[in-house]
Amino acid sequence: MFKLVLSDPSIFKTSFDAISSIVDEVQIEVDSDGLRLNAIDRSHITYVHLELKESLFDIYECDKPIKLNLDTEELMKVLKRSKNDDVMELTVDVGNLILTFEGAVKKTFKVKLIDLEYDTPSQPDIPYDIKIPIPVSILKEAIQDIEIVSDRVSFEVDEDKLTLEAVGDFADAKIEYLHGEKINEKARAVYAISNIKEMLKAEKFSDNTYLSIGTDMPLTLYLELLNEEGLLSFLLAPRLEEED
Amino acid sequence: MFKLVLSDPSIFKTSFDAISSIVDEVQIEVDSDGLRLNAIDRSHITYVHLELKESLFDIYECDKPIKLNLDTEELMKVLKRSKNDDVMELTVDVGNLILTFEGAVKKTFKVKLIDLEYDTPSQPDIPYDIKIPIPVSILKEAIQDIEIVSDRVSFEVDEDKLTLEAVGDFADAKIEYLHGEKINEKARAVYAISNIKEMLKAEKFSDNTYLSIGTDMPLTLYLELLNEEGLLSFLLAPRLEEED
Amino acid sequence: MFKLVLSDPSIFKTSFDAISSIVDEVQIEVDSDGLRLNAIDRSHITYVHLELKESLFDIYECDKPIKLNLDTEELMKVLKRSKNDDVMELTVDVGNLILTFEGAVKKTFKVKLIDLEYDTPSQPDIPYDIKIPIPVSILKEAIQDIEIVSDRVSFEVDEDKLTLEAVGDFADAKIEYLHGEKINEKARAVYAISNIKEMLKAEKFSDNTYLSIGTDMPLTLYLELLNEEGLLSFLLAPRLEEED
Repeated sequence: MFKLVLSDPSIFKTSFDAISSIVDEVQIEVDSDGLRLNAIDRSHITYVHLELKESLFDIYECDKPIKLNLDTEELMKVLKRSKNDDVMELTVDVGNLILTFEGAVKKTFKVKLIDLEYDTPSQPDIPYDIKIPIPVSILKEAIQDIEIVSDRVSFEVDEDKLTLEAVGDFADAKIEYLHGEKINEKARAVYAISNIKEMLKAEKFSDNTYLSIGTDMPLTLYLELLNEEGLLSFLLAPRLEEED
Repeated sequence: MFKLVLSDPSIFKTSFDAISSIVDEVQIEVDSDGLRLNAIDRSHITYVHLELKESLFDIYECDKPIKLNLDTEELMKVLKRSKNDDVMELTVDVGNLILTFEGAVKKTFKVKLIDLEYDTPSQPDIPYDIKIPIPVSILKEAIQDIEIVSDRVSFEVDEDKLTLEAVGDFADAKIEYLHGEKINEKARAVYAISNIKEMLKAEKFSDNTYLSIGTDMPLTLYLELLNEEGLLSFLLAPRLEEED
Repeated sequence: MFKLVLSDPSIFKTSFDAISSIVDEVQIEVDSDGLRLNAIDRSHITYVHLELKESLFDIYECDKPIKLNLDTEELMKVLKRSKNDDVMELTVDVGNLILTFEGAVKKTFKVKLIDLEYDTPSQPDIPYDIKIPIPVSILKEAIQDIEIVSDRVSFEVDEDKLTLEAVGDFADAKIEYLHGEKINEKARAVYAISNIKEMLKAEKFSDNTYLSIGTDMPLTLYLELLNEEGLLSFLLAPRLEEED
């Protein structure tokens, strides 16, 4: 028996908008506790983790663990057709994930499950001291600011500020955000803007977002649902400044 | 004497948005009763019929029948420049249809009449038992849903539902609409999505819309103005499922 | 000491949206009275003049005259990143114009000053008797109307009306605007639509706009801020109707 019902398809839509721009294929693991996905892109630059607890769902029936291997682009095409006030139901038959969106009409999509040798990447465990709550909208706009001068951006944290900065051929850009946190150390690392923009597509997952960085360490972006019922996180490898 | 005044140019704008995507050239026949247009596309797949009764117009002066041969694309370019709260006036001079839109400013467009050997296609008379009222917006969205998996769609009607369905390479899609009509038979036919999308451009013509189908028969979409003052209808030939 | 602070960056944004589409490089002259820019495009078709008085600014410190040579496209990229409710600050360091936009975050952009042999074009002094106040939105829409039939437009003024008109291959277009001014003479000239569209990008500079024309003379468009604190004007050379 496998049946999950969720009254807000936007959690899936926004997650897979980001995920499908990072990885082509994924394995979703579902068991009695909830749903999990771990993936890493081909170049091993971005690691993505999604988990949704069973308590988040209106109906959650999963009597034995199941692995769903999916083409993320095909899944995203279907998720885009949902409306935020539709009720979404997930079931399976032989070889398909069945997504039903019920609103003014009933829409049923069967997405073919794919064959996939999938080694779930192990989640890197990086101890961070710096954790800064920041609205994704602020981050998104800052990246658009930086983008006019460069395709790289440095993130720098000190006691007071998070500073995003880049030096370009014709202009330089610097965005300063007062974080209001009690932070006693500094950190600085450089990332590729194109990778950051992929993550930020998950913007609507949650308003409860924060990021962590360490000097020349990965950038981690966390988007957390209320009551710990869901988490979407991204871990993005830094670029060495000498690279080109 | 030829002068027609209408306080809502959107009826023309939305009609010709659909018509100009189906046929390049048309003949509009005007007499003391009203205005009529019958046309069929080059491939003889879509037949379109428009009629607007004289009572719909604020001023209607047409003392002898007249035939206006027009390039639909040129006419549409002009109609697009109207605003919904403009007053539209149609007159003629030698060789031109003159369209005036009067709002904050007065806009006058002269569109050249064209030479055209025009055999008005006779309207196919197809007896249908199945007539289903359905908002064009529902139909439009269902077609967008189906489009992600295929370029063809089957329409199927039974006692309870209108079902649009398609099978694709990576996913299948099915949209079910409870029609709420008293229908005692079934029907099923397949159509090309691109042709359906052309018709649906006429969306704003009326909220009073319904469709008819028969097994392997044309799909008919009717858009009717209040008080029978106007009708826009499309008749779309079915595709054989064996075709490719 | 050079520091200008303005609480409405949109004046700069809309000005340079137009200016950057007309000229690639400009010299902005700043002294204790205010800021001035005069420029002419490579083909000597459009002359643009911008002046902003010191009283317009919230803070205005400029103890010695300064000339800022800038690439208009690079400057425009930066100005686009401002929000209308940001506070904009302009300062300089060696070789850079520094623009700061302060709102929810603080954005600092350094735009490189360029080397430029700049002969400030002298402003043509054309005595006009005809001055017609007209909202830029009306002008913009009329140009879009005309554009569907031609790439040239004639402006004609008489006692009652400003008439924009063009004759096309498939259709003609005429837009009549009742100017409500006391004008005792007539004038007529033809302009290229592409050049007019460049000027109209400055739409949001001011609601206080008027135009002047003379027979076969340049078209002048004036956009004036309240209390004579700023002026943006464009002078556009006419096209001879025989040209092609």
